[in-house]
Amino acid sequence: MRTSQLYISTLKEAPSEAELISHKLMLRAGLIKKLGSGLYTWMPLGLKVLRKVEAIVRDEMNKAGAQELLMPAVQPAELWQETGRWDLFGPQMLKITDRHDRNFCFGPTHEEVITDIARTELRSYKQLPANFYQIQVKFRDEIRPRFGVMRAREFTMKDAYSFDASFEGLQVTYGKMHQAYSNVFTRLGLKFRAVAADSGAIGGDGSHEFHVLADAGEDLLAYCPDSDFAANVELAEALAPTAPRAAPTEALRDVDTPKQTTCEDVAKLMEIGIEKTVKLIALVAGDGRFVIALIRGDHSLNEVKLSKVDGIGEFRFATDEEIRAKFNCPPGFLGPVGIAADIQVIADRTVAAMSDFVVGANKPKLHIAGVNWGRDLPEPHVVADIRNVVAGDPSPDGKGSIELCRGIEVGHIFQLRTKYSAAMNCLFVNENNQQEPMEMGCYGIGVSRIVAAAIEQNYDQRGIIFTPALAPFAVAVVAVGYHKSEAVKAAADKMYAELVAAGVDVLLDDRNERPGVMFADMELIGIPHRVTIGDKVLADGQVEYVARAGGEMQKIALGEAVAFVQQQLA
Amino acid sequence: MRTSQLYISTLKEAPSEAELISHKLMLRAGLIKKLGSGLYTWMPLGLKVLRKVEAIVRDEMNKAGAQELLMPAVQPAELWQETGRWDLFGPQMLKITDRHDRNFCFGPTHEEVITDIARTELRSYKQLPANFYQIQVKFRDEIRPRFGVMRAREFTMKDAYSFDASFEGLQVTYGKMHQAYSNVFTRLGLKFRAVAADSGAIGGDGSHEFHVLADAGEDLLAYCPDSDFAANVELAEALAPTAPRAAPTEALRDVDTPKQTTCEDVAKLMEIGIEKTVKLIALVAGDGRFVIALIRGDHSLNEVKLSKVDGIGEFRFATDEEIRAKFNCPPGFLGPVGIAADIQVIADRTVAAMSDFVVGANKPKLHIAGVNWGRDLPEPHVVADIRNVVAGDPSPDGKGSIELCRGIEVGHIFQLRTKYSAAMNCLFVNENNQQEPMEMGCYGIGVSRIVAAAIEQNYDQRGIIFTPALAPFAVAVVAVGYHKSEAVKAAADKMYAELVAAGVDVLLDDRNERPGVMFADMELIGIPHRVTIGDKVLADGQVEYVARAGGEMQKIALGEAVAFVQQQLA
Repeated sequence: MRTSQLYISTLKEAPSEAELISHKLMLRAGLIKKLGSGLYTWMPLGLKVLRKVEAIVRDEMNKAGAQELLMPAVQPAELWQETGRWDLFGPQMLKITDRHDRNFCFGPTHEEVITDIARTELRSYKQLPANFYQIQVKFRDEIRPRFGVMRAREFTMKDAYSFDASFEGLQVTYGKMHQAYSNVFTRLGLKFRAVAADSGAIGGDGSHEFHVLADAGEDLLAYCPDSDFAANVELAEALAPTAPRAAPTEALRDVDTPKQTTCEDVAKLMEIGIEKTVKLIALVAGDGRFVIALIRGDHSLNEVKLSKVDGIGEFRFATDEEIRAKFNCPPGFLGPVGIAADIQVIADRTVAAMSDFVVGANKPKLHIAGVNWGRDLPEPHVVADIRNVVAGDPSPDGKGSIELCRGIEVGHIFQLRTKYSAAMNCLFVNENNQQEPMEMGCYGIGVSRIVAAAIEQNYDQRGIIFTPALAPFAVAVVAVGYHKSEAVKAAADKMYAELVAAGVDVLLDDRNERPGVMFADMELIGIPHRVTIGDKVLADGQVEYVARAGGEMQKIALGEAVAFVQQQLA
Repeated sequence: MRTSQLYISTLKEAPSEAELISHKLMLRAGLIKKLGSGLYTWMPLGLKVLRKVEAIVRDEMNKAGAQELLMPAVQPAELWQETGRWDLFGPQMLKITDRHDRNFCFGPTHEEVITDIARTELRSYKQLPANFYQIQVKFRDEIRPRFGVMRAREFTMKDAYSFDASFEGLQVTYGKMHQAYSNVFTRLGLKFRAVAADSGAIGGDGSHEFHVLADAGEDLLAYCPDSDFAANVELAEALAPTAPRAAPTEALRDVDTPKQTTCEDVAKLMEIGIEKTVKLIALVAGDGRFVIALIRGDHSLNEVKLSKVDGIGEFRFATDEEIRAKFNCPPGFLGPVGIAADIQVIADRTVAAMSDFVVGANKPKLHIAGVNWGRDLPEPHVVADIRNVVAGDPSPDGKGSIELCRGIEVGHIFQLRTKYSAAMNCLFVNENNQQEPMEMGCYGIGVSRIVAAAIEQNYDQRGIIFTPALAPFAVAVVAVGYHKSEAVKAAADKMYAELVAAGVDVLLDDRNERPGVMFADMELIGIPHRVTIGDKVLADGQVEYVARAGGEMQKIALGEAVAFVQQQLA
């Protein structure tokens, strides 16, 4: 394609409302254009990128045995009433009333519609498993749409739904989809992680999120660079220290801490490492008991993990009044030594393995050091993993150390089990001629969000750096002086024709613009390879090549340029 | 693909609500599935057909220089208020209120959105012409959705919008799009006609409809089999007879017509051809005058044409009272002889060329025969084309005779001129540095409707007969006894692999079904070519071939079958 035939509209400055890098760059590069709050037009250049994502997603879904269909965007309320989600889904659902006053929504997801299809189409175990997907525009009425297509209201999603005759079957299907998702993000050239996740509002058992790693991500992830391990920090296990607890070496002693109410300040005052300190968190468990949790001074409490400890459940933090009543001491100087016997002590695994540690003395302005389990206080009632992992922790799979990073969720797969099939009477006849609800899974990819996430992961001060799989064009041929120099025009047209003939997706920049403008545009829109044809080098029988991702400009003999470009693409 | 991997669900009987052949066959073949009134899921097999249409449309749009983008389906009310269409569009527009009580619609069309894009993106004549298109789901809240995807509420449309600097430029663009549309329907293998049309609600000057010819069509078309001429009957010109009016040969005489009030009955009574009779239509013109129109007995009045006669405008038919007051005679016996001089007489071109004709006598139960212009009554005040064409009329392009047929509108192109650009301030700076509104065109194709229209044109009692371009698969290989006979399985797998390797879009029917079921399914879903592999013929080293469109079953040597199939496809 030629720039004279492709509408390119770049901006020097992004609109001030754009906060995220990807949002700014997509607007500046003219990939998208805002129509309204959370509503974006995909301009020709942006649509080319979106379609590349779609094509890879489609190909991997087909390879995984899923079949593409296309359900209506507008869905009748009656189906959502069968599962109760008409009322439960909340204001993100865009509700619509038609001319006959019947209720519909602009589908935010399609579990109800596909289950309605399955319950009439699939009757026998012989028809299972079945897996249907679509690539379609969805609408979620976000209260505060922002970040461009990263959190738009109308967006393109690939949603797949599987139906199996057994839980074992579902797990096989789920595994195939997990692999297909990995293939998609690998082919897109993105750094990503599949992480175990809570299944949240969609419901069911077991789910994984797929995150593109990028600093702008809303989620904090723990992963192991040496293995496949990855998890949302909320769910990543902190292993118990492998070394046994050291024997006591210090005597118990008071430490005056007149103003030191945090472990950090106490450690500073004492000139010791913060990892020698322990903090106490007082809370009221779901069953009403007063409980204390002990965490090493430099660690943070993981509320999800704590809530899973027997009897804790939906706990709350104790109030200042409750703390003063139990300890007769203000917060900031609390410790587990000498407390009432009815207070349950939950020690994090790390704390349980410590010796000679520092805690509050349960007296104002005082801490105690040289504290040891068994000698100075009873062993903890419960030892559990209740902290967030930190960088350097051993990976739970035993294959290295954990690192932390931020991720953008671009995919989510769920084992729904029978949540929808049972509610909607989506039954099949099994081999024993009995009816059972189908075992369902659902599998989403944020197709339009991927484009933004990819940019968050790949950009520099000059603009987007698209991976080859996502780039709107593989190669830009910039013809400097196309409208002034016969030689440039002839060489550019010839190279363009040869690259097209070789099946290369090439953009010939034949605009009558200054070279700086053309270079800046090709860099901003992120085309991976650039060949420049200008009179000066052409006089020496050469053209210039540079890769968008970096590296020096190289001069290439004109006659070898096409072969050279093909090598770069290979 | 194999049927074991493709969800195929055929029905012996279509649901009773389906009236049209295409609706019945699409449901029976499992191409679509109803979700709600005017809402259909495209099932995997149907989606394959829909995508084939999309691909051809996309390719021809790109070749015509249009650029694909993707606008949001949900559109803000404010844009529609700028053109006044928020109120004017009527109840077909599905209006939506979001969580912040702002007004939107599910786009029924995108003139406002694209004009909003153009007015900010396109500023100079140097950027024109520009032509943008999208293939997208639209929603029109039909009061009575029916005929399946032929008149669904949610449907897939290709809509293109062009922007030119001058009317001449618009006409060039319009011509290119006209050609692109012809290419699309030609490639789809459909019998179609482009007909001049009134532009209707979209507005502007000049438009053509593209119709797929089929008995089920809602529009009556006039076309010339020997040329490109085609028009909606309302707009097709009836040429004046080329032969001069014959000289009178009969004397004026009364004919008793006691019960004969129609030309047909009068001609029957007189034992003459109805083409010797003339009927009188009394009307009140837009300017209030009493006027009579004369049409040959076997012709019908074309109200659109009549309204274009000078001074007629928005006329109405005269009431019985008005007629009696002017003629002192009941309707059924009216004629142009001896009427008041202030009554304007508009004669159809055919009538003006008649001699010795029969008309009402303006007396009850009486007609007069042997009537001649000039001799028995003054020459008509106006001679004009005011009738509908009939089969056998000469084609207005002078290249043959007109025939009539019914058509299904699948495309519509409009010269909008500046209707939207002026209303929305979509201006460009011309070569003289002055601002002007852009000259716009818009161009729609009913992508999903095409599938239904194609079926209306191509079916038989066994089901759909897809044209090669539309068929979900080019070839069906039916393996009879695939699960019982090693020989059949081996031969079928080998042929399947060879056809796939040769790039043929083949469906291997490897189901464990009776041959009759498999044949009926392959015929119902309309696959153009079928190869059958069964033990009996395989024992003779042969397979059977039959074309869906008709023809005898042929036996082909197994070793030559792949080459034979490729020949059929070529």
